[in-house]
Amino acid sequence: MMKKYELAVIPGDGIGKEVVPAAVKVLQTAATLHGGIQLETTEFPWGCDYYLKHGKMMSDDGLEQLKNFDALFLGAVGDPNKVPDHISLWGLLIHIRREFEQTINIRPAKLFKGLTSPLVNPGPFNFLVIRENSEGEYSESGGRIHKGEDEIAIQNAIFTRKATERVMDYAFKQAVLRKGHVTSATKSNGIVHSMPFWDEVFNDVSKCYTGVRTSSVHIDALAAFFVTKPSDFDVIVASNLFGDILTDIGGAIMGSIGIAPAGNININGKYPSMFEPVHGSAPDIYGKGIANPIGQIWTASLMLDHLGEAALAREVLRAMEEVTEAGIKTKDIGGNATTDEVTNKICLQLQN
Amino acid sequence: MMKKYELAVIPGDGIGKEVVPAAVKVLQTAATLHGGIQLETTEFPWGCDYYLKHGKMMSDDGLEQLKNFDALFLGAVGDPNKVPDHISLWGLLIHIRREFEQTINIRPAKLFKGLTSPLVNPGPFNFLVIRENSEGEYSESGGRIHKGEDEIAIQNAIFTRKATERVMDYAFKQAVLRKGHVTSATKSNGIVHSMPFWDEVFNDVSKCYTGVRTSSVHIDALAAFFVTKPSDFDVIVASNLFGDILTDIGGAIMGSIGIAPAGNININGKYPSMFEPVHGSAPDIYGKGIANPIGQIWTASLMLDHLGEAALAREVLRAMEEVTEAGIKTKDIGGNATTDEVTNKICLQLQN
Ligand SMILES: CC(C)[C@H](C(=O)O)[C@@H](O)C(=O)O
Ligand SMILES: CC(C)[C@H](C(=O)O)[C@@H](O)C(=O)O
Repeated sequence: MMKKYELAVIPGDGIGKEVVPAAVKVLQTAATLHGGIQLETTEFPWGCDYYLKHGKMMSDDGLEQLKNFDALFLGAVGDPNKVPDHISLWGLLIHIRREFEQTINIRPAKLFKGLTSPLVNPGPFNFLVIRENSEGEYSESGGRIHKGEDEIAIQNAIFTRKATERVMDYAFKQAVLRKGHVTSATKSNGIVHSMPFWDEVFNDVSKCYTGVRTSSVHIDALAAFFVTKPSDFDVIVASNLFGDILTDIGGAIMGSIGIAPAGNININGKYPSMFEPVHGSAPDIYGKGIANPIGQIWTASLMLDHLGEAALAREVLRAMEEVTEAGIKTKDIGGNATTDEVTNKICLQLQN
Repeated sequence: MMKKYELAVIPGDGIGKEVVPAAVKVLQTAATLHGGIQLETTEFPWGCDYYLKHGKMMSDDGLEQLKNFDALFLGAVGDPNKVPDHISLWGLLIHIRREFEQTINIRPAKLFKGLTSPLVNPGPFNFLVIRENSEGEYSESGGRIHKGEDEIAIQNAIFTRKATERVMDYAFKQAVLRKGHVTSATKSNGIVHSMPFWDEVFNDVSKCYTGVRTSSVHIDALAAFFVTKPSDFDVIVASNLFGDILTDIGGAIMGSIGIAPAGNININGKYPSMFEPVHGSAPDIYGKGIANPIGQIWTASLMLDHLGEAALAREVLRAMEEVTEAGIKTKDIGGNATTDEVTNKICLQLQN
């Protein structure tokens, strides 16, 4: 029997428009090889160019159009020369994350074959950052008061027990399937309301998982440890902002922020999950055909895994690592191949 | 004529009690060699042990006792097994920063002779992080509502135009004396009230310094760039939290967070400035005599420079680099020397 998956594809801005078609090509190649599955893709032209024409980042009934897909596959959003970032991101990426209750963001990082880590001694690190994806420091609550030299901006970070418990619970569940160690990213020494609360909830949730080892590390030290001893970590649970920062460092130590994949997971089953790489739209290199498609392709693998196609997900990862190991890579990771060359080679490699 | 400087010395907690005496020894050796200056030190026993005895981190008239010193020399504060971090830090370190209007935090980082950076290709990086030190994400504004599963913690980050302009102005002035480039750490794509405000002020202040090149980089990408291309930076201006995170990464890429120095600068002349290393109190290694004194000694050099003794500051730095280059280093940076051995060798080297 043929299994069919319906995927909504949103290339978005900048290099998203280059790496998404590349990853879709890999996905289709993988599906064809598998034989038993069919991927039906529908593309949506939303992003900053759409905003310039229509005054909005996606169409008004955009969520309606998206909500019955099996998964969403997104490139990158944002192009500050066209639309201020806080408008473009909150109008599309963050909008979907919130409205579709994608409350958990998962971001694996590992030492990748064929990639040169900028670290002398990266060790065989392999960790998973579980990031709260619905609240925290990313909040529309706040505003300004007074004008001129007296002006004040207030930003509220909001942490609910529900969302905090949920992300921690998810992290502990992942740790049970992995090496049984959860590290909590905190900053309760400096940030005195939200972070002591975060620590309390971490302490509470940890009691339900007595077999899991726990650590609590301040974000400043943790960011440094990602550089000095990344192999010490298994699962890291972090707030929205801290997860954001840590996962870019994760990308950096793998060899490039162009590599790291991410999934925005809806865990209540009401809406689709969304998969997008950690990197941004890099408008400065857009159009040159040199963008690294690896982050988007790894993201595609993460999506396959989420859809229940674990074996195929592994195949994509294998092909990707083999091509990288063979030295066929883009400039940002020390090669001189184009986006297309890397992509075509991965498609070929899938067939081996 | 003899110049006399009166220094308040607060070793604080953990390894602060080991590295502060070490650095004071170096300072006194330097002063003796110079001949024309005298350093008078007064020690204050404040910290977590003091709290356990007196129920407070410093004595009630502590600020009164400190306020007429020429500078404060602090080790590290915090020992979560004795006192919760948010109590110990806000009762001493952050308390002094705020009450003495030390609104600017300066933290240099550079590739240091004799230290092995964990980066394969660190390049000759040399940057200065200027951190807002009085407000922002570190704020006592906020609280909780509801109990049990409905509990919510709210944390307010507060950015005033006055403090934001002040730290940026300071950063631009430093850039004029250096390589003429200021990078602003932002996150206006995710954090929609404080960070767009931060960007606006940055844009305004930059207009007063037309000769200075500016960049604005989101904190996630910036943290990654500290790993992948640290030589791209000159002066970085950052909020309280972002500056905290970036400077630990700065320490990491130098070879250890045990190295990085910091100054909390009062710029209105009403109160003394305070100098403390970036690293924490590391209670886990306290008492073993293996703590790295370099961060505290470099901090001492920063203090001398601030007091107007630039030549002597350079001498301390020189001696410190030569000893490190000669391989006399503590374990965290790949050697096997004790705190005392490193310190004594630096004192000897000063005399060459
Ligand atoms: C101990 C802590 C409150 C402090 C801070 O975050 O300011 C420290 O990390 C620092 O960087 O000086
Ligand atoms: C673009 C931005 C709003 C986004 C975030 O911070 O969440 C991105 O950095 C990410 O990590 O997905």
